[in-house]
Amino acid sequence: MSAYRIISADDHVQEPKDTWEKRVPSKLRDRAPRVVNVDGGDVWMLEGQVVMKMGMNAAAGKKFEDYKLEGETYQTIRAGAFDPSERLKDMDADGIDGAVLFPNAFWAFMVQDFELQLACMRAYNDFLAEFCQTDPRRLIGIGLVPTDNVEEGVREAQRVAKLGMRGLLVSSFPKAGPLSSEVFDPLWAAAQDLALPVHLHLAVGDTRGQVFHNERNVRGLLPGQILINSMGNMEALARLLFGGIGELFPKLKIVSVEGNIGWIPYFLERADRIYQRHRFWSRLQLPMPPSEYFHRQVYATFIEDRAGIRLRDLIGVDNLMWSSDYPHTDTTWPNSLKYIDETMAGVPEDERRRIVGGNAARLYGLE
Amino acid sequence: MSAYRIISADDHVQEPKDTWEKRVPSKLRDRAPRVVNVDGGDVWMLEGQVVMKMGMNAAAGKKFEDYKLEGETYQTIRAGAFDPSERLKDMDADGIDGAVLFPNAFWAFMVQDFELQLACMRAYNDFLAEFCQTDPRRLIGIGLVPTDNVEEGVREAQRVAKLGMRGLLVSSFPKAGPLSSEVFDPLWAAAQDLALPVHLHLAVGDTRGQVFHNERNVRGLLPGQILINSMGNMEALARLLFGGIGELFPKLKIVSVEGNIGWIPYFLERADRIYQRHRFWSRLQLPMPPSEYFHRQVYATFIEDRAGIRLRDLIGVDNLMWSSDYPHTDTTWPNSLKYIDETMAGVPEDERRRIVGGNAARLYGLE
Repeated sequence: MSAYRIISADDHVQEPKDTWEKRVPSKLRDRAPRVVNVDGGDVWMLEGQVVMKMGMNAAAGKKFEDYKLEGETYQTIRAGAFDPSERLKDMDADGIDGAVLFPNAFWAFMVQDFELQLACMRAYNDFLAEFCQTDPRRLIGIGLVPTDNVEEGVREAQRVAKLGMRGLLVSSFPKAGPLSSEVFDPLWAAAQDLALPVHLHLAVGDTRGQVFHNERNVRGLLPGQILINSMGNMEALARLLFGGIGELFPKLKIVSVEGNIGWIPYFLERADRIYQRHRFWSRLQLPMPPSEYFHRQVYATFIEDRAGIRLRDLIGVDNLMWSSDYPHTDTTWPNSLKYIDETMAGVPEDERRRIVGGNAARLYGLE
Repeated sequence: MSAYRIISADDHVQEPKDTWEKRVPSKLRDRAPRVVNVDGGDVWMLEGQVVMKMGMNAAAGKKFEDYKLEGETYQTIRAGAFDPSERLKDMDADGIDGAVLFPNAFWAFMVQDFELQLACMRAYNDFLAEFCQTDPRRLIGIGLVPTDNVEEGVREAQRVAKLGMRGLLVSSFPKAGPLSSEVFDPLWAAAQDLALPVHLHLAVGDTRGQVFHNERNVRGLLPGQILINSMGNMEALARLLFGGIGELFPKLKIVSVEGNIGWIPYFLERADRIYQRHRFWSRLQLPMPPSEYFHRQVYATFIEDRAGIRLRDLIGVDNLMWSSDYPHTDTTWPNSLKYIDETMAGVPEDERRRIVGGNAARLYGLE
């Protein structure tokens, strides 16, 4: 175990089979998502559609050679993915003190029927609150909040706070408009009042990846898609920063999750240059350059990212949070301490301490 | 003037008013794009649509406070944008020895009717060849090549070579499929045989920006769009690298133009990590990690980008090319030497020499 606290700022739960069936209101029970086995692999079905295949979403502990897109089951993946007691053991084995928990069920943000979407999100939040109760000091839940209906989003944010969760996950590409649209202001106001950071997670609400999945026969398209997935975080942040959300809600905290960090120095430098040259004709209502709002209010998680660590002074050492991404394919489990050593070779001890846990502890009020 | 050669690897021409009318075949003359004055500003019309407004496309020499989206005319912009003799004077005034020339007419790639599209591209190429004849040592032309019809693309590439141009500009998001699709192999083969680098230019073929232009009322959307424009280069490069184009065409050169460079260290590090973890299930046909193809075959231009310069060892000093982007809003004109000094403070003289001109001279055979 490390001499100081290590918190993975981005881990995931693979929702157990009964997550929704046992929690959605009875009139929606028949429409709740459920697991079926197809050709030996577990898949999640909703409204007649496959919404998640068991494969990449729970690869922890497997060799890279054995990673697969589909064909895993709840028996072939680590139980730590869905069982909180097993999760704590897996964290112990990896030297991890705390884990910030996100869903695997990104599909929840794409459910067309809003009544069903909201019911699925509420059920997930109830489930995750129970999951975290196993050890609330180490398991830090982030609740799902709908953006298709902002009024209900505000209501669910308040409920999430009451459930003891430490943050809100929203769609990075809401149907109701770009994140900078005024329609979302009540949600940012609620998040600020509740002191719950808003999380933009890689691929959540981002339909571009789906196009690629439909064109599997084209060379290199799927790995290429994984490479450009972090562009979604970049785009969502660009909208929030230039949309003045930091100015309007100065105590709101925003977290870019799983987007990694090596692109951020470029992003901020470029943003400030655009501010310098383009704020006149575009009548930007920003008293400060975008980078200042970033340093004050935005956090970003990364797994391995040596380029970003080399330029950490440009991002802000206090804005960075390491993560293991357990149980996904990028995970550092069960060798997180070794990966941290490699990624952060040469980083002074006090900076490292903040990056691997101190910043998360401060952001989520875990001190 | 500098003690060594300075080449701007990304400049633009504002096509003169008669560019197309006087060069497309007579049967298409009535459909050729032309300039009309709307509310005091010149706009280019094609098939009843506004395809370009005079504003951001020729801002050189104006104060940032005076930049505008529209409302400029051929009288209010610098003549160097469209007149080659004036261009050479503007280059002299800025201490620039050579300029690699790209169009303002990105709309050419989006013309629906292919006969008209091809005619417009051929006319542009004929125009640019004449423009460069004013001083072929200093004015380096890049020809337009259609990707909607690859057979015609190959033919036009051969014509572009005969016209004395030094490279090919293609759509980063062709209608015929992702750049990694096999349908484009004949074009890459032709480019390799002709020793003409293939250029991916910011925003060319990228329809995402258009969405933003239609939603002008949303806060900060347009400046935010400028910020994320380089994502298009990232996405196109991801497809080419993971599509194995570097492996299939080992002498092909690819240039990322105006996408800047600060994101590339992250991009390559992440690409190699994806290669390490995901090449098995995805059956990637790549004997080397993507970064090795990049270092061997890809070049990238930048204007100001201190983050990228700090991490230049991770990109490859020989893969970088400075540019002034004259006459666009990002241009360093008429203070390019000062901007270069600021961006490259601390860079050893021999590296700087390569970045500001040596690499371009080698790539385009100007030595």
